[in-house]
Amino acid sequence: MQLLNDEYYMRLAIQLAAGATGQTGINPVVGCVLVKEGRIIGMGAHLKRGTPHAEIHALQMAGAEAEGSTAYVTLEPCSHYGQTPPCSDRLIQEKVKRVVVGCSDPNPLVAGTGIAKLRNHGIQVDVGLLETEARQLNEVFNKFIITRRPFVTLKTASTLDGKIASRTGDSKWITNAESRSYVHTLRHRHQSIMVGIGTVLSDDPLLTTRLEVPGLHPIRVIVDSGLRLPLDAKVVVDRSIETIVLTTEEAAATKRDELEAAGVTVLACGAGPKVDLAKAMELLGEREISSILLEGGGQLNGSMLELGLIDKLLMFFAPKIVGGGNQAPDNFQFSGFESMKDAIQLERTQVQQFGEDICIAGYPLYRNEV
Amino acid sequence: MQLLNDEYYMRLAIQLAAGATGQTGINPVVGCVLVKEGRIIGMGAHLKRGTPHAEIHALQMAGAEAEGSTAYVTLEPCSHYGQTPPCSDRLIQEKVKRVVVGCSDPNPLVAGTGIAKLRNHGIQVDVGLLETEARQLNEVFNKFIITRRPFVTLKTASTLDGKIASRTGDSKWITNAESRSYVHTLRHRHQSIMVGIGTVLSDDPLLTTRLEVPGLHPIRVIVDSGLRLPLDAKVVVDRSIETIVLTTEEAAATKRDELEAAGVTVLACGAGPKVDLAKAMELLGEREISSILLEGGGQLNGSMLELGLIDKLLMFFAPKIVGGGNQAPDNFQFSGFESMKDAIQLERTQVQQFGEDICIAGYPLYRNEV
Repeated sequence: MQLLNDEYYMRLAIQLAAGATGQTGINPVVGCVLVKEGRIIGMGAHLKRGTPHAEIHALQMAGAEAEGSTAYVTLEPCSHYGQTPPCSDRLIQEKVKRVVVGCSDPNPLVAGTGIAKLRNHGIQVDVGLLETEARQLNEVFNKFIITRRPFVTLKTASTLDGKIASRTGDSKWITNAESRSYVHTLRHRHQSIMVGIGTVLSDDPLLTTRLEVPGLHPIRVIVDSGLRLPLDAKVVVDRSIETIVLTTEEAAATKRDELEAAGVTVLACGAGPKVDLAKAMELLGEREISSILLEGGGQLNGSMLELGLIDKLLMFFAPKIVGGGNQAPDNFQFSGFESMKDAIQLERTQVQQFGEDICIAGYPLYRNEV
Repeated sequence: MQLLNDEYYMRLAIQLAAGATGQTGINPVVGCVLVKEGRIIGMGAHLKRGTPHAEIHALQMAGAEAEGSTAYVTLEPCSHYGQTPPCSDRLIQEKVKRVVVGCSDPNPLVAGTGIAKLRNHGIQVDVGLLETEARQLNEVFNKFIITRRPFVTLKTASTLDGKIASRTGDSKWITNAESRSYVHTLRHRHQSIMVGIGTVLSDDPLLTTRLEVPGLHPIRVIVDSGLRLPLDAKVVVDRSIETIVLTTEEAAATKRDELEAAGVTVLACGAGPKVDLAKAMELLGEREISSILLEGGGQLNGSMLELGLIDKLLMFFAPKIVGGGNQAPDNFQFSGFESMKDAIQLERTQVQQFGEDICIAGYPLYRNEV
């Protein structure tokens, strides 16, 4: 049990927001709790792009009671007309007395305008309560709103010696059922999933979200420089969600037409012969894909990391040693650095256990950022 | 981060309910999350007696989307007309497809009727998900709805050698500021606070909830067999919340009239000369006081425990040894048991730290229950 204080209500607002992670598209997740005279009078979360924001749901629950209340909002209330009217206007209109904000708008061009508007109308605004947690809720949005490039989370699953298969290619299963369910939860929470053509050719995966309860499926993104994707692959035949193939301008036009006729979106990323991955991120961003769960093989993982395109790593380790040297594939295949001090450092590492499996999360710090 | 499954949504519903603990009076706290096609479409909690239940708030947030959804509710939806229409009718009317229930109604006469009604209308109902947590949310309600007697939580604060003051009577402060703030949170979460007249005469406390944010004040209950309560005591003069004095039928009528004229409620509990504490619980229950935070001295604590009237203990220990033998007062003053095996056993013990202070929580198992 927590102390009853500003944090108590902000933490509840964060829980409301966190629950909706993955279902708001390129919008941020936001939670709001309205409190008056020692009592919660309204709760809300933004649930879907184009539908009311967290503050509006909470104000609706509170009704006429809202006047004189304190609003705890995980993110600075908006002050502009988007698909819905500005929340700061509604908070002013309903005569809310105080607004406690978790974090300001991540867009430096907008940050503070919602807060200023509230203050100009005599509302007390306190900013930065549980700021780290509130900001972390929207690590995807925070990147996308500034760069228009997707936030990429690389998930790997390997033995303790970094192998993703044995030297005979056996890879079923490295991690346990609990870890694998968690990965499906990650799929629900990301707008897209990305794999290389090698994975499709060897495993013919569906790449959908399969859990005890229905989840949202991520858009499937296949990196396929040579357009080798078979027309009868599951990711082509299954229409439960869109499939995008990333290829190059030099890819065969006839195969491209066939894939498009089968409902697949084909994007040419650079002149070739290899897919220009940085260009691919730009094109996916233009299509409002704000997050990618990368479940690549060693080659794609290595290339993405080398190019500095990965924002977060989730590395699952099964408590096993499989050996096999060069013959057993590694987590990351790229030329690497000469010196240990040049290695890509992870920061803000966290550890979680799934049964006997261990998951290490971290954010890579690239050399040009050090 | 949790796996996306039924538990994910039920845990969120529990968080919604837990946030509202202390503000629903004799009503239970309840949370509800509505989910459809992999997406949360509504959230709600019961916020105040006489206002909509959790399910209704969530259904209102969902609007027309509710049809075909799954509702996660911490407590069995009601099937009777209370101050609001039955939630089970509304779930049926909105064509919810499946209802996942944390725990059934604690009242054996009612338990299952809401569930049966839903099932009779073809709704799939799954009962008992996170049942322990869901039931624990309402330990107060669960007792009160059956017995009409308040749930009593005894809070003590002592040194590691069980002293509540030194031999000179010095008791400021035993525990640290963090522990004391937590106690004020406990006041917010209880409908009443009970102390003995000795505490009032020596400390003249206000007994209100004082925290960084406004909390709800507990009704003040003073055990005062001889009606020694001064008319200028803070608990009499301060009108921010009701004060009830528990006394006996033989208490002086003139003093009783004076206290009542000053706005105090006086209840005679038994013939005297001492307050009949069991009778007191009955009278407080009749006044719809469903929870008591007992912050007594050693005498009152000992009597309440000896009579089996305490449901839960929260024992704060400061990391100190003060000594003083008989001259320093103990946590509990009562004659006690001859044999160690007869001692009152605590079950379901839990430990929490507040800075250097330690709080041990547990539920006493009385001899007639063993």
